[in-house]
Amino acid sequence: MSEFKNVTIVKQANVYFDGKVNSRTILFADGGKKTLGFMQPGEYTFNTADPELMEILAGELEVQLPGCAWQTVKGGESFNVPGNSAFTMKVKVASDYCCSFIK
Amino acid sequence: MSEFKNVTIVKQANVYFDGKVNSRTILFADGGKKTLGFMQPGEYTFNTADPELMEILAGELEVQLPGCAWQTVKGGESFNVPGNSAFTMKVKVASDYCCSFIK
Repeated sequence: MSEFKNVTIVKQANVYFDGKVNSRTILFADGGKKTLGFMQPGEYTFNTADPELMEILAGELEVQLPGCAWQTVKGGESFNVPGNSAFTMKVKVASDYCCSFIK
Repeated sequence: MSEFKNVTIVKQANVYFDGKVNSRTILFADGGKKTLGFMQPGEYTFNTADPELMEILAGELEVQLPGCAWQTVKGGESFNVPGNSAFTMKVKVASDYCCSFIK
């Protein structure tokens, strides 16, 4: 799906790591929530509340999920992050992502 | 207005200057178009087709509009750019913006 229709987008960006990671919150009619975000090269650790599906739309990174080895993820690929956990990404090239919060 | 309701958002980011500027395209039911974007510190020149209203949601930059002196623009302020022209921005701190394309 290349676009999301009939959604609400929060105007102000979510900003992390001095702006090196930023995202927009998308709210769906069914109560669902996603963020569309962009990451500059660098290393970032995020905590999760709900489980998340991270789709890398473009770019390349390495990710370390809880209790796992580092794995490379490229544009078109995705990974799941358990809820109430943390994950670290080493972003190799500027990367575009879509994060879905799984209820 | 802190959010846009009943809109379509294009999933893939618009990426400029090696990702130092990135934005998402928002399409409105009335045919209107805006982008919500984020800029890393740096200097950027953009060309326009339609006239644009640039709202700086957060951050600080200097902008040189066609035939004008440099002016400082901070979060909460905005500037208009004529169509079929170019403008240059010196982004001082990571800045969040909303660009409206004026038909």
